[in-house]
Amino acid sequence: MTPSARTSCAPDGASYSLPDAAAEAASMRDVFARAVQARQKGQGVVVVQGLGFVGSAVAAVIADARDEQGHPRYFVIGVDLASPASFWKVAKLRDGLVPFPSPDAEFDRLIRRGVVDMRNLCAATDETAYGLADVIVVDVGLDVENRHVDQPADIRIGLPAFESALRAVGRNMQPHALVMVETTVPIGACEHVAAPLLREERARRGITDSLKLAHAYERVMPGPQYMASIRRFWRSYSGLDDASAEAAGAFLGSFVDTATFPLRRLATTTATEMAKLLENSYRAVNIAFIHEWTRLAEQVGVNLFDVIDSIRVRQGTHDNIRLPGFGVGGYCLTKDALLAQWGGLHLLGSDVTLEMTLQALRVNYFMPRHTLGLLTEVLDDSLRGKRVTVLGVSYLPEVGDTRSTPTEMLVADLEQAGALVRLHDPYVSRWAERSHASVARDLSAAMADAQALVLAVPHKPYRELDAARLRRLAPQLAAIVDAQNMMNDQTAASLRAAGMRLAGVGKGHWRRLGYQERAGS
Amino acid sequence: MTPSARTSCAPDGASYSLPDAAAEAASMRDVFARAVQARQKGQGVVVVQGLGFVGSAVAAVIADARDEQGHPRYFVIGVDLASPASFWKVAKLRDGLVPFPSPDAEFDRLIRRGVVDMRNLCAATDETAYGLADVIVVDVGLDVENRHVDQPADIRIGLPAFESALRAVGRNMQPHALVMVETTVPIGACEHVAAPLLREERARRGITDSLKLAHAYERVMPGPQYMASIRRFWRSYSGLDDASAEAAGAFLGSFVDTATFPLRRLATTTATEMAKLLENSYRAVNIAFIHEWTRLAEQVGVNLFDVIDSIRVRQGTHDNIRLPGFGVGGYCLTKDALLAQWGGLHLLGSDVTLEMTLQALRVNYFMPRHTLGLLTEVLDDSLRGKRVTVLGVSYLPEVGDTRSTPTEMLVADLEQAGALVRLHDPYVSRWAERSHASVARDLSAAMADAQALVLAVPHKPYRELDAARLRRLAPQLAAIVDAQNMMNDQTAASLRAAGMRLAGVGKGHWRRLGYQERAGS
Repeated sequence: MTPSARTSCAPDGASYSLPDAAAEAASMRDVFARAVQARQKGQGVVVVQGLGFVGSAVAAVIADARDEQGHPRYFVIGVDLASPASFWKVAKLRDGLVPFPSPDAEFDRLIRRGVVDMRNLCAATDETAYGLADVIVVDVGLDVENRHVDQPADIRIGLPAFESALRAVGRNMQPHALVMVETTVPIGACEHVAAPLLREERARRGITDSLKLAHAYERVMPGPQYMASIRRFWRSYSGLDDASAEAAGAFLGSFVDTATFPLRRLATTTATEMAKLLENSYRAVNIAFIHEWTRLAEQVGVNLFDVIDSIRVRQGTHDNIRLPGFGVGGYCLTKDALLAQWGGLHLLGSDVTLEMTLQALRVNYFMPRHTLGLLTEVLDDSLRGKRVTVLGVSYLPEVGDTRSTPTEMLVADLEQAGALVRLHDPYVSRWAERSHASVARDLSAAMADAQALVLAVPHKPYRELDAARLRRLAPQLAAIVDAQNMMNDQTAASLRAAGMRLAGVGKGHWRRLGYQERAGS
Repeated sequence: MTPSARTSCAPDGASYSLPDAAAEAASMRDVFARAVQARQKGQGVVVVQGLGFVGSAVAAVIADARDEQGHPRYFVIGVDLASPASFWKVAKLRDGLVPFPSPDAEFDRLIRRGVVDMRNLCAATDETAYGLADVIVVDVGLDVENRHVDQPADIRIGLPAFESALRAVGRNMQPHALVMVETTVPIGACEHVAAPLLREERARRGITDSLKLAHAYERVMPGPQYMASIRRFWRSYSGLDDASAEAAGAFLGSFVDTATFPLRRLATTTATEMAKLLENSYRAVNIAFIHEWTRLAEQVGVNLFDVIDSIRVRQGTHDNIRLPGFGVGGYCLTKDALLAQWGGLHLLGSDVTLEMTLQALRVNYFMPRHTLGLLTEVLDDSLRGKRVTVLGVSYLPEVGDTRSTPTEMLVADLEQAGALVRLHDPYVSRWAERSHASVARDLSAAMADAQALVLAVPHKPYRELDAARLRRLAPQLAAIVDAQNMMNDQTAASLRAAGMRLAGVGKGHWRRLGYQERAGS
C-alpha cells in the first residue's frame, strides 16, 4: 500500500489514518482526566516526548515503576507528532502494541500491562500534554544529515526539529517541572540550545522560576535485553544546576536498579553530552581499526579471526578487540562523533578537529564497499545482469532496525553496477529508508534464482544454513561472500568441493590460498 | 666520562673497555667447554641473540627452566656484539648483573643464580656460539628509523642489522637447530627475509636439511612483573612448516607456564607477525583516540577523567578505555603499526594504507606538544629564559627505560623556545638517546630555582609531592602543568590559593573555570 499524506505507515506494514483535530482533542480530554485522577492517587505524571526506539521503551519502563506497595509510581503519557512519519507509533501504543517488534518479549508485556491492564500508560499528539507533567523526558531524535563528510565544517545536523520540540515543552510545561533530556545531542546543546529556548518560552508566559533542566543520556540497546538495557544498566546524569541534577537523580532512581547500578553524576551537561558521544565514538574507532586491518590481512593471506582470537586472551587490555565484518549501522555509532565535532565547533567555540575519529567514521562508512569488492573478485565477471541475493537488511542480528544499515550502500552499489538484487530479512518487511526496495520474508523466494549470495547480517536462520540447504535453495549459485564469518569450515569446504567460489571478510586464506590449503596447514 | 670508540657505556654510567680478540677467543673456548659439559649432562644448549630488554630477560628465564628433578634444562648463552653500543650488556651479564635496572627483583635473582650459582648462563660476543645451539632465540632489534611519516612510502626500517644478525646465525648454526624469532618484525619478514637469508648461508655450507624457523613474538613488559611477563603470560607461535612450529611449541612449553597460559599456534609466520603488530597498534589507536578528545574536552571545559571514569563501568566493551596523559613512549607502540605498513608494502605486495592507524601514530607522536601548549598558556609569557623543570624522563612509571620517551619532544621544544630546562628522574642517570642532557637524581637540585614545573611521568616520588613540599623545593615556582593527573584536588586547591597557576592535561575546568569553581560544582 502506498503511504499518502493522510496515512502513517509502520515498518510492519500496518497503516493508520492520521487523526482529525476533533478526535485528538477528545483523546486529550480523556488523557487530561486520567492524569488528574492519577495525581489524586499520588502518582507523578511523566511525559515522554518522542516515541522512537528510545522513547517508547523508556515510557514502558517508567510506567512499570512501582512504589513500596507495588502500585505504579507514575502515569505516563507518550507524545509524538500526528504526522505520516510518526503517528503510527502513537496508534500502536494506543492499541497496547509495541511500535518496534522486538526479540525482548518483556517490551510487549510492559506496553500491554501499562496500556491495557494498569491503564497508566497512554499516548497523545497534543503538546498541551507537557502541561500535565512533573517530569518531561525528551527522547526526540537529533540526527546528522550527512554521515559522510570530508571537513568538520561540512557537518549538517537536524537541529530545527529538536529546537521545535523543546519550544513545545517550554510553551506548555509547569514552572517547576523537570525537563530531562535523554536525546544524544551535540556537546553544549543543553546549555546553549535547550536552556535558552526553554527560558525564552517560559519568559513569554511570565515564568520567572529557575529552570530545572537535566541531561541523562540513554544506553538503550534494541535486542533481547531491550528493557534491561534501561532498568538494569549504568546511567550518568547532570543538571544545569544542583537542583536540576538532584531532581534528575531522584527520578532516575525511581525506575533504574541503582542498587546494582549506582548512578554517576557528572559536573555539567556538556560533560554527560560528551560522555555519550565519546563512548560511542570509542566503539566506532575500534571497529574502524579492525576494518582497516581486515583489508591488509586479506591481501597478505592472514585469517584475522584466528589472529584476534589469539589476542583476546589478554584480559583487560585486548579482550574487547572487534572482529572483521560487513560494516557498522544503527543510529548512533555512525554519527555521534559528528555531533561532538559539530557542537565543539558551533556551540562551544572549539577549534579542535577530531581527525582520527572522523577518519574512523569514513572507514566505517565505506566498509560495505569491501564486501562488494570481494563479490566482484569471486564472481570474476561483471555484476551487470547478475542475480545477487543479499541476506540481511537490518544492522543488527535478530533485530529489525534498518537505520543506517550497511546493507544500504551495498545494495545501492549493486544496483548501480547493474546487478539484479534480491533482499531477504526475517525481521524486516518494509525498509523505511529505501522504500522502493522489496524485502522478501520467504528465504526460498529470495534465493531461488540467485547466482551470487552475500551473507550480510548474522541472523540466526542464516547462521544455520549448511551446504546442502544452500545448494537446494539456490541451484544456480556460483559465488558466496560471507561478510560475517557465519559459514563454518565444514560448510565452506563442502561448497568449494562442489565448485562454489567463496570469499570471507577477514579470511585471507579463502582468497589467496584457497580454503583447503588453509584447512590443511 | 666520555665514551670513546674503545669503551661501552651502560645507562647506569658504568663503562667497559671493549675486549680484544684474544680475550674473547679465550672466553669463547671456555663457553664452548662448558656447553659440551652441559650437553653431556643432558642439558640443551640455547643461544639468545641480542641482550636488550627482551633478550636479557628471556635468557634469564630460560636459564631458570627446570626439569622434573629440579635440574636446569638448558645451558644458555647470551650473545651480543663487542661494540660500544652493545658490549656493556655482555659485560654486565658476565658479572652476574642485570643489564637494565628493574623494579622486578626476580630479574636480578635469576641472572645471579644462572651466572654465579648454577653456572648455566653466560655471555659471548663471538658468532661461533650459534654453532653450539639446539635453539637460537632471535631477540635483536629491528627498529623504524623515522617514527613520524606522512606517507607509507616514507617509512624507513633498520633491516640491515636484522639481516646481518640472521646471516651470522646461518653461517654457524647446526643443521637441525631451531631458529625462533622473537623480534617484532614487519609482516612477511620471517618468510621473505629471514628464511631466504638462512637458507642462503646454509646452502653455502652445503646444508640441505629443511630449515626449522619459527616466530613466537614476545610480550615482555619492563616493570615489576618483568619475569612473569615471560613465564606466566600468553604466547602465540607459528612455524615455516609443521616441524618448525612443533619444535617452537615444545621449546616454549619448557619455560612458559602453559598449564595456566596455553600456547596458541597460528597458521603462518605472517599471522603471528601481524598479531604482534596489530595488538600494539590497537593500543596505540586507543591512546590516540583519547588524546584527540582530550584537546576537545579541555577547550570546552570538561574534566575528561570524570567522564572516562563514568564510562569505564561498561565492563567488556569500555572498561579498557584510556586516560588523558603526556604521551606514548617505549620501543613498541610508537612504531609497530609502521612495521605492518612497511611489510605489507615491501614484502607482501599489498596496496593497503592503514590510514586511520597511521593518523593515530601521528597524534601520539605530537602528544607532548599539547603539554607544551598548556605550559605556554599558564605561564602567559614567553618561555625564553624561563627555568623549567621536567619531572620524569623515562616513558613508564617506576622504570628507567627512555626509549622514544615523550619527554624527548618536550625537552627539545623547550630548548628550542629558549627555556632553561632541568631534568629529573629517579630511575635515569644517563639519557642514552639524548646524551648531552643532564638528568639529576636529586630532586632538590633539579627544582631549587624552577619557575615552572612539568609533571611528565607518574613516578611514585612525584605522586607523593604535596603543596607544602612543592613550594619548599621550588620557592620561585609560579606555574605547574600536571600532564598525568598526578596532583590531587587538595594539593591543587592549596597551590592555587597561594597564587600558583595550574593546568592539567584532560582537566578542562582547571583552564576554563579555575579550580575552585570546579571543586564547588
